[in-house]
Amino acid sequence: MPPLPKSFHTSYPDADSAIDRRIPDFPIAQLLDEDVYFNTHKPPTYLGEIEAEISEFIDYHIKNTGKKVVLVTSGGTTVPLENNTVRFIDNFSAGTRGATSAEYFLELGYAVVFLHREFSLLPYSRHYSHTTNCFLDYMTEANNRVEINPNFADEMLVVLRKYNAAKESNSLLLVPFTTVNQYLYTLKTISGVLSKLESRALFFLAAAVSDFFLPHSRMPEHKIQSQTSGTLIVNLEQVPKFLSRLVDNWAPTAMIVSFKLETDSLILIKKAIGALERYQHQLVIGNLLQTRKKEVVFVTLKDENWVRLTEEQIGKNVEIESIMIPKVIEAHDQWIKSKQNN
Amino acid sequence: MPPLPKSFHTSYPDADSAIDRRIPDFPIAQLLDEDVYFNTHKPPTYLGEIEAEISEFIDYHIKNTGKKVVLVTSGGTTVPLENNTVRFIDNFSAGTRGATSAEYFLELGYAVVFLHREFSLLPYSRHYSHTTNCFLDYMTEANNRVEINPNFADEMLVVLRKYNAAKESNSLLLVPFTTVNQYLYTLKTISGVLSKLESRALFFLAAAVSDFFLPHSRMPEHKIQSQTSGTLIVNLEQVPKFLSRLVDNWAPTAMIVSFKLETDSLILIKKAIGALERYQHQLVIGNLLQTRKKEVVFVTLKDENWVRLTEEQIGKNVEIESIMIPKVIEAHDQWIKSKQNN
Repeated sequence: MPPLPKSFHTSYPDADSAIDRRIPDFPIAQLLDEDVYFNTHKPPTYLGEIEAEISEFIDYHIKNTGKKVVLVTSGGTTVPLENNTVRFIDNFSAGTRGATSAEYFLELGYAVVFLHREFSLLPYSRHYSHTTNCFLDYMTEANNRVEINPNFADEMLVVLRKYNAAKESNSLLLVPFTTVNQYLYTLKTISGVLSKLESRALFFLAAAVSDFFLPHSRMPEHKIQSQTSGTLIVNLEQVPKFLSRLVDNWAPTAMIVSFKLETDSLILIKKAIGALERYQHQLVIGNLLQTRKKEVVFVTLKDENWVRLTEEQIGKNVEIESIMIPKVIEAHDQWIKSKQNN
Repeated sequence: MPPLPKSFHTSYPDADSAIDRRIPDFPIAQLLDEDVYFNTHKPPTYLGEIEAEISEFIDYHIKNTGKKVVLVTSGGTTVPLENNTVRFIDNFSAGTRGATSAEYFLELGYAVVFLHREFSLLPYSRHYSHTTNCFLDYMTEANNRVEINPNFADEMLVVLRKYNAAKESNSLLLVPFTTVNQYLYTLKTISGVLSKLESRALFFLAAAVSDFFLPHSRMPEHKIQSQTSGTLIVNLEQVPKFLSRLVDNWAPTAMIVSFKLETDSLILIKKAIGALERYQHQLVIGNLLQTRKKEVVFVTLKDENWVRLTEEQIGKNVEIESIMIPKVIEAHDQWIKSKQNN
């Protein structure tokens, strides 16, 4: 493998010339990594279809319901190591935070665009997938018919009603991704459409997005063969930080909530504040891998507020999202008010 | 990062001395990669429990049913890049081949140990998971009760009956893995127990096992931080080839079927023959990523036989495993006979 170029820029010599043609609506004071990325990586072929679906969804709510809209991102993105993909790098995330949060947003009157890793947890279905039960363990045979096992039927009816209510009111749009490239392009496209809603749009970015990726230009076509050498060296580049672009250009008047997941408690708050200073968005929700279902911290440039489940709540299986999401909505309502006053 | 050692051996200076103490029952003519691997990587903590379960399962069938037993491996293994795992390398595999094959083995009278990637497709449940339908789309509400949607009910009853028959006859044992380390240790343990059955044991190795891995000694403890440098370089070592150990030591009289998946048709047969010559096992089933659901090739050192679906069969959604598995069983029966004659 040839030695690595020192910076991301220099590995794409033709990126400069392409910028003006392809992203003419952005002010180009300097060549940003984000531009280089989009100029050197192709959009997914289905992006036009997704854009049409989102537009229809948003227009429906503008015309018919007046609902606020939240984009919830959920699950981990992959980084393929081959073009005919056999191997890829993945980020650990079942999608629990995103799927659970989406349910509470729906119940509290939001329309939800759920941008999720394919086959990760979905709102409502999450209660029955990715468990140690297999699908058919919920079923039983009675009178020559397949039926829901009575042990699960009552609770399932409650969940099914909520799910059907979300479907029937056209309040939930599921948009899948697999690779980090699909995620970035889809996020950009959705942001463009959501920007119509101005401050009434909320970004709730719970997906675990890869920090590193393998540029398309370095990707081998076929499956990497193991015999040719004893070891495999993978040189990954840093994924450009798209949050600033989202804040500044894609949807500049929306409220943006990002997540910070760490395993080391000593650096959590510092890193959350660092992100706020860097991107100038509204809220970072910090959490530690080990305790993420019991406590999170809301960090703004003004203060930090811990949200913790009590022992009693933990005993009763209260979901922390049932407390988090009303607080996020409160902050969003204040954001909308502050924008109306301007 | 320091330069890579030239060979796997030299990166573990203390491996030699450890071999004699920990694997005393293997003849040690030379230091094998496999031994180094097991001496430098810890077994999963739950391995004892799995061994007990498998032993109970095998003893049950020896005493009560006299069934032949197949180990079906299925799904892709992961390679963690951090100890508190946030990132990992994965192999693309939904587990379709393994889950489908397991059903046909069960129907044709085998007891099945299904060693599978957690959350990959399972026998029977596969018909309802990983589809574009979400779990709750199979349900409907009628008379204030949750019921199976009538569109799916008849077919689901057929599948449920087969699943329940497998459960009630104790013929299906599900054993999960996630990482390549868990896979290798569990395969070794299961092989030891299955070797009791001698030629009546069949190994059907359909899992997509990583060719490369990150040795434990090089793994960082916490999440890799992205700010520290612009790029990430991952140095991976080749996973030792365990198939020869399986053939020679772990279960030397069992029949072993391995798979070869390629994307390039020109090298498929050559690589299948190469594997047979190297490991001296009985059968390689070759397939191409692009056509794997329509054609496979049975390769032995004597001949190659293609199994192909006809256009008519493809139109009727015939699964190629319904033709493959009876052929594998035929070969297994011949293997058993040949061993009895010895």
